This record gives sequence, structure tokens and C-alpha cells, in this order.
Amino acid sequence: MNGAESLVRALVADGVDVCFTNPGTSEMHFVSALDRVPGMRCVLGLFEGVVTGAADGYWRIADRPASTLLHLGPGLANGLANLHNAKKAHSGIVNIVGEHGSAHVALDAPLTSDIEGIARPMSNWVRTSRSASDVARDGRHAVAQARRAPGHIATLILPADTAWGEVDPAAQVGAPPEVAPASAASPDAVVRAARALASAREVPTLLLVGGNALREGALANAGRIAAATGCRLMSEFAAGRVQRGAGRVVAPRVPYVVEAALEALAPFRRIVLAGARVPVAFFAYPGKPGRLVAPDCEIVTLADFDQDPAGALDALVRELGAQAHAPAGVAERVPRDRRGALPTGAVTPEGVGHVLGALLPENAIVVDEAVTSSRGFGPPTATAGPHDWLTSTGGSIGFGLPTATGAAIAAPERKVLALEGDGSAMYTLQSLWTIARESLDVCAVIFANRAYRILHGEFVAVGGGQPGPRATDMLSLDRPALDWVALARGMGVEASQATDLESFATQLARAMSRRGPALIELVL
Amino acid sequence: MNGAESLVRALVADGVDVCFTNPGTSEMHFVSALDRVPGMRCVLGLFEGVVTGAADGYWRIADRPASTLLHLGPGLANGLANLHNAKKAHSGIVNIVGEHGSAHVALDAPLTSDIEGIARPMSNWVRTSRSASDVARDGRHAVAQARRAPGHIATLILPADTAWGEVDPAAQVGAPPEVAPASAASPDAVVRAARALASAREVPTLLLVGGNALREGALANAGRIAAATGCRLMSEFAAGRVQRGAGRVVAPRVPYVVEAALEALAPFRRIVLAGARVPVAFFAYPGKPGRLVAPDCEIVTLADFDQDPAGALDALVRELGAQAHAPAGVAERVPRDRRGALPTGAVTPEGVGHVLGALLPENAIVVDEAVTSSRGFGPPTATAGPHDWLTSTGGSIGFGLPTATGAAIAAPERKVLALEGDGSAMYTLQSLWTIARESLDVCAVIFANRAYRILHGEFVAVGGGQPGPRATDMLSLDRPALDWVALARGMGVEASQATDLESFATQLARAMSRRGPALIELVL
Repeated sequence: MNGAESLVRALVADGVDVCFTNPGTSEMHFVSALDRVPGMRCVLGLFEGVVTGAADGYWRIADRPASTLLHLGPGLANGLANLHNAKKAHSGIVNIVGEHGSAHVALDAPLTSDIEGIARPMSNWVRTSRSASDVARDGRHAVAQARRAPGHIATLILPADTAWGEVDPAAQVGAPPEVAPASAASPDAVVRAARALASAREVPTLLLVGGNALREGALANAGRIAAATGCRLMSEFAAGRVQRGAGRVVAPRVPYVVEAALEALAPFRRIVLAGARVPVAFFAYPGKPGRLVAPDCEIVTLADFDQDPAGALDALVRELGAQAHAPAGVAERVPRDRRGALPTGAVTPEGVGHVLGALLPENAIVVDEAVTSSRGFGPPTATAGPHDWLTSTGGSIGFGLPTATGAAIAAPERKVLALEGDGSAMYTLQSLWTIARESLDVCAVIFANRAYRILHGEFVAVGGGQPGPRATDMLSLDRPALDWVALARGMGVEASQATDLESFATQLARAMSRRGPALIELVL
Repeated sequence: MNGAESLVRALVADGVDVCFTNPGTSEMHFVSALDRVPGMRCVLGLFEGVVTGAADGYWRIADRPASTLLHLGPGLANGLANLHNAKKAHSGIVNIVGEHGSAHVALDAPLTSDIEGIARPMSNWVRTSRSASDVARDGRHAVAQARRAPGHIATLILPADTAWGEVDPAAQVGAPPEVAPASAASPDAVVRAARALASAREVPTLLLVGGNALREGALANAGRIAAATGCRLMSEFAAGRVQRGAGRVVAPRVPYVVEAALEALAPFRRIVLAGARVPVAFFAYPGKPGRLVAPDCEIVTLADFDQDPAGALDALVRELGAQAHAPAGVAERVPRDRRGALPTGAVTPEGVGHVLGALLPENAIVVDEAVTSSRGFGPPTATAGPHDWLTSTGGSIGFGLPTATGAAIAAPERKVLALEGDGSAMYTLQSLWTIARESLDVCAVIFANRAYRILHGEFVAVGGGQPGPRATDMLSLDRPALDWVALARGMGVEASQATDLESFATQLARAMSRRGPALIELVL
């Protein structure tokens, strides 16, 4: 048995049985081992941003890490942007990155680069295996690191000679390394938060939730606390996974636009944080604050994102004696026959939101990278059946289609709906090929406004004035217009174009009623 | 005037008048300045790998740097793989990377990352501007660094507040910083190389050229030296730009495959290096040497790549008194009517090479990322009209279409032919949109073997045995087959499919006879 095979065996033994891959020469021994070791599902992506984004989506839905297989420094580099999102989402991922054989690195061959240096900014843990006999142990450490609450990016670099070198079977490690248990909110923090919330009817108080407090049970507890104390409830703007829809407690997102966020947060004199950070602006703008809460707003931290905020809310409910309260803010189900006729005519954000709310299937997974188009979809979809909503957590563009790919691998029985801006979708459009190849139940809706629309607003917001013709040109995707139907078909995904709300509703209803890959280009 | 505008003015003043861009919020002030500062041509790419690869192609043809405009850490990360190739090609590039305002970085907003850390592995020079008044000076330093021989990657990070902050016009710097002159080969090295070559008829000697010694004039000097001394001539496998074709001296590439390289280099007891390094294998393979020359082969360094090897060859010709020699190894022109009929029937590498040799236009630029398909194209194209041949220097996949894009911007009057593997082309296929948008005279030929064909060979070469069904699956792109005609049309590029040599020749002849974007999918 060589080192690569020992690694595949270790990964599978420790429950990592999916590998998103884009291998090269240095990774061939890992690939070779796949025919000798049962139990690892390998999913090929034609660009590494697909690979790492898929691993992020997999974690968000499966709550356990997938591995990636990346080719040397440049392959890892291509995957960094989506690792950035995954790191900010606290997703656990085990990256396996090939490296030249140790003696070869010294020769400065063309592909030689500082792989540890490339890995470090987007990894929580980096290690380079030193010998074939270390590889299995290193792999198990990587898995343990990836699983460590709330989830971490572990990058293991595998020199080719450690992959092909023979392993002494007797030297194989036994039990997996212990995963450090999640730290928990301190009892003091729970008591302090309870005290703060107890006066919420006198002092306007916000309970701001993030991380694993965005799951159904934790949100129900947050709703109980709101019912018991009169506090308000909101969620972070950037959230890895929110469980929402009918029967679940609604925690409206802190708005993206600074003025809107300031207005939404202004009423509160006190904010209790459960897995969330003090809200800050996505970007810096001249003359506008970066921190979005009033300077005199009191901040009470119940639990940071790595302190099991869901568990902390559970403790807080007990501390407040709120167990028997019915949660406040539960979304009512509005079935399709009570939503009125589907809207018709020109495409409007409200109309699209209405169609989505009416047609979203039970238990769907929505991956939202529609940027400017999807900002109003919260209310109409909150009353659809229960579903998960995944957003970008790191602001790195091109997260949507890969994340949808990984989510679909994690939950083959669920419909995945990827809402994508045309600009965003272009960064990692290669995902469509993997979706077709694996026959994933993913429907992508491309909001084709043929511009980096968000940047028109940002241009003004940063004080750039009104964009002149040359600036406008840098924000426009209409020359030539992208033909998403052709692009999708080029990668084997059935596609159609919708230009009004009727055709959109018809095409979306069809895609939702059947399994398998589909793409709808919605021309705005 | 704000910092961003002062930067655009400084870049233009110092001769950097092309900017390949994929901007975001933090770069809006730079974009805004484009409407106030004349002289900067901005070219939008829909993915950052297009942007950095285009800057590499621009340098290789223009011999002066373009700038790039990239959005924060993730935008830079997406561009790293092609910066890796550019760095290994010794291309000069000025990267401008936006960063949050200094105060905002401390807030750990979603897009916050260690931008300097991300930049460092693929940059030769990294600086973060500290204030608006520093930006122009920093920009000029970046240009000077990029131009420093033989060409360097300079990355300037621009915090948003330094971009929007007002600049004291009085504080503007005057003259540009001095560019350190290229170091030159020492007279001793020239004498030593001359002595080594003088006995080439007794001691089999190779003159191995790389870097700027691959330009026409330097190759002619190398040919004179070969004529005068009887040495043999070869060029490095990975070369940024080779001037070749009829009337130019042929310097065959060191082969990629280790066994072939060992065989090609085995006869030589002495190697004189002019801008080249001692040949090493692209990858490490078990039981095979990494260094491809015999252990007892004497290495004589005339000039390293950063010591103006072309100038060193000039000095060497004089030292040898070889000025009057007619260069050896000049490629004869074989006009089309002496090439015989174009081949017909099934697509073979030989047949494709023959068609290319016959149809390659005078003064074309060939960008070669066809990997396994193009290995035999050297001989049949050496006798076509003079042209430039650009190959990947860092082995990072996805270099071809972006490099072709930048080369076409640098030389609008020349035909650019991009030879692409289907697997390679997928990494940065977004280039096609920029090619369409800018109406560039680029014809892409996609060699559609529907596999990572090179990896089939590498799998065996590293000792993986014969790939089993699961391994084969990871190396195959045939499920589903990519439809390159649809993909190209989806981005506005006219495309056609060729399935035999007749249709390929007809389609290529048509593309070569007219200007503008075209793509041919050649099914293998």
C-alpha cells in the first residue's frame, strides 16, 4: 500500500466519502487508489472553483466534510476564492493538494510554487506530509481539524513521493485523533443575556442570530425568547444556511445597503449576539460608518459563532423559563391557491418573488447569488414550504453554482434551486457540466440583467458620482449579450429562456415538477 | 484629484495604457477616473484568470507592462494561476488590487482577507499604499518594478480610503523612479563560454537558449555560433515567446517526456546556458531523474535569464569572431504550393500539423495550450512564414485563451491562433466573451479529445499502472461531451465544428482569411 492509498482509506474510515476533484500528474496515485479502495465518491469539476465551492455546499447541507483533490499551487489558487467563502461560512473541508516530490521542489520546475503560502490565507490548518508513513495520520488530523466546531478549512499538502512511497502497514494509526469538542457559551454569558433580555420591553433589544442558530430548532428557541421577552429577532446578512419557510421562525436579514441597515438597527439600545457578530458594512464608504449599530448601543454576547450558539439559545430559553412559550414570528404557510393568480407581464422583482414563493417545492435548497435581483425574495418565499436558504458568506463571486452542485450531492432527494446573477454565474459556469454529468437535481435561474448591476449602486455609494461612458462600459455585460441557453446546452444542461413572468412561471413549474438539471435564463 | 485618479494618471504617464479589469466596489474610484483621465484602454474580463492571463500575453508581445484591476483578495486569488505562468515567463505586470478602507479591515467584514499574503507567492514585489498622497508614487514604483529586466510581477494594493482620499497636487512626484538596468553577463562568462564552445567539434556541446535569447536576432546569433563551432542548439521546453518560422534559426525544444528528453540530451558532454536553466523534468516520477542531463555533463552558464542572454549571445559571437558566419539551422520557407495537397480524411496529429503549417498566416501569433495534441506541430510549422509561438511557462492550466486575448490587444494587426485542449480551454473559457467584445482577431482551435489526455500518460508514468474504471472516469470529459460551438456562440463568438481534415482545413482557411473572432472545435 502506498501513501495515497493509505490516505484514501483514512478519509473513508473517518467518514469523508466524497471527493470533489480536479487532479493532475501529482495526484495520479490518489486517483489510482480509487479503484482499490471502495467507498469514496469522486466528483470531477472542470475548474477548481467548482471543486472547492461544491465542498462548501456539501458541508452546509451534510454537516460533515467532503474532501477536495487539487493540483499543486495553481490548482489550489484557482480554488481559493470559494475557500474564502467556505472559511467565512465556517464550513469544514479537507483539501488534498499535490506537490512535487521533495527532491523535485529543489529543482524549481515550472509548476513549483509556495503551496503552503498559497494555502494559508484561506485555510485554518495547513500541513505538508513528510513521508509516506505519515500520510494516513496527517489525513486523519486534517479530517479532525475540518470537523472541529464550527467547521474549518484543513489543507493537507501531499508531496508526490509521500503519495507513491510504500507504507508500513504495521505503522498504521488506530483510532482517529480526538476532535476538540465545541466550546460552549459560559453560564455567566447565559445569565447576562437573560438579564439583558428580561428588560426588552423597556429597553428596545435585538436578538441577532447567526451560525448554527439559523437552524430550525434554534430559531424556534429564538422565537420563544422573543415571545417571552418582547425582543426583536434578526439574522446576519451573510449566512451559510438558514432554515426558513412555513412553520419556522422568521429572522429578517440585516439589510446590505448601509442606510437601510442603519435604519433597521437604529431602534435598538441593546443587541444580544447568538452566533452573530456586531453588524458591519460589507464595504467601506466615504463618510459612512463601518459599524452599523449606534455607538451607545449595548452589546451582550451570548455566544460567538464557535461557541455552539444553538446550544446557548437552548440554555437561554431555560434560564428565561420560556420553554412553554409558543415561538413568536412563525411564518404562516400560504398555499398556492391562497396566493392568487400568478403574476403576468413584464419581469419585475416583485413578480419573480411571487412566482418563486408559489412554486418553491417543499424541502428545497435555495442557493442565492442573484445579488441585486434577489433582495426582495425574503417575504414571498418565507410563506412557502420549509426550505434551506444558502447565501455567500465571504462575498467572493462565483459561489452559487458550485455550492448548488455540492448541496445536491449532499442531498440527492432534495430539489436545489440556484438563483444566479449573470455576472456572478460567469465566474464558475463550468459547474453546469458537473451538474449534467452527475444528473443532479439542480435548477439554475440566471437573472440576466446584462450588467454588474450592483456596481452601479456601489459606484454612487462610494462617491464616484454618476458613471460616465467609459465607467459604464466596465460595468456592462451587454456587448455581446451572453446566451445562457447556448452556454448551458454546451455543457449538457437543458435550458430555456424566459422574457416575461408567464414564461418564467411555466418554465419554473416544469423544472420544479421533474428531476434533473435545468437552467432558465430570465431576461430582465 | 483623488488617489485613484492620481494612480491612473501615473500609470498612463509611465506608459502603462492598457488595463485588464474585473472591478468591484473597492475599485470604483479607479473606474470613475477613467472618464476623467484620457489614454487608458480598459478591457473587461468576466473572470480574473482572463484578466491576468491577458496581461501576460500583452507583455509577451508588447514588451511593456499592462495593468490589471482586481477586486480584493478573492479577485486576486482568481487571477493567481495565470500570474504564476506570467511570473515563470518573466512577464512584467502591474496588478492593482482594491482593499477595504484601512479602518474597515479591522472590522473583519466578509470580504476581508490577507491580500498581501495572497499576493506574495505569485508576485515579485508587493506594496500596500498607506495614504492617498502615496498612491501615485507607489504606482510609479510598481511600473518600474514590472519593467525591471527581464520583467516582474508588481502588485500594488490600494485601500479604498487611499483611492478616494484627496491628493495634494503639490505633493505629486516628478520623474518616474529609475528602473534598475538589466544586469549583463560578465566578460569572464563570455570568455568561458567561448572557450567551451571552441572545442564543440571534439566535445559534443549543446547551446541551450531561453528567455530573450528566443527572439529572432538572438537566435540568429546562436545559429552563427553553431555554424562557427559545430555546437548543437536547443531551446527550453517552456518558453514565453519564441520567434520562429521561415528565415529564422530553429532551436528544437527539449522534449516534455522524461525518456525523450534524456535521449535528446544524452549525447552532450557540455551544455552552455544562454537564458536557460539546466533542464529538469516537469514532474517527479518514481525512479526517474529530475535533472535531465548526465551527471558528468559540464554546465557552463553564459547568462541567466535575468542577465540579458540576447546581449550575451551578441558578445559571444564577437568573442568567437563568428559575425560573418551564416547562421546554421535556418528554417527554409516551404510555400503552400510546395507542400502538396492538404491532407484529407480522419483527424491525425500529423495531418493537423500539415494543415497548420500550410495555412498559418505571415506574422501570426500562436498560443499553444493544446498539450498532447500539439507536440508534433513544431516541424511542419517551422517552415511556415515567420511567427511567434507562446507556450505555458508555469504549467498552470487555462493560460491559452487569456494569453491570446492579451496578445491580440498588444498587436491588433496580427492574427492570433490559440491552440487549446478542450480540458485546458474550460478553465478560462470566459475569455471568449472578451475576444468577442473587443472584436479581437483571434481564432481558437479546440482540440476536443474529450479527456485530460495528458493524464492518461502521466498516470502510467508515475507508476499508477493502468487506470481502472473509476480513475478513467476522473480523466474523461465525454459524459456529457462539451459542445464548443454552443459555448462559443453563447459568448458571441462565431464557431464551427470540424470532424475530419477537409472540414478543418476549410474552416481554418476561412478563419485565417478574414479578421475577427472565430472558434473551431476539432473533434479528435
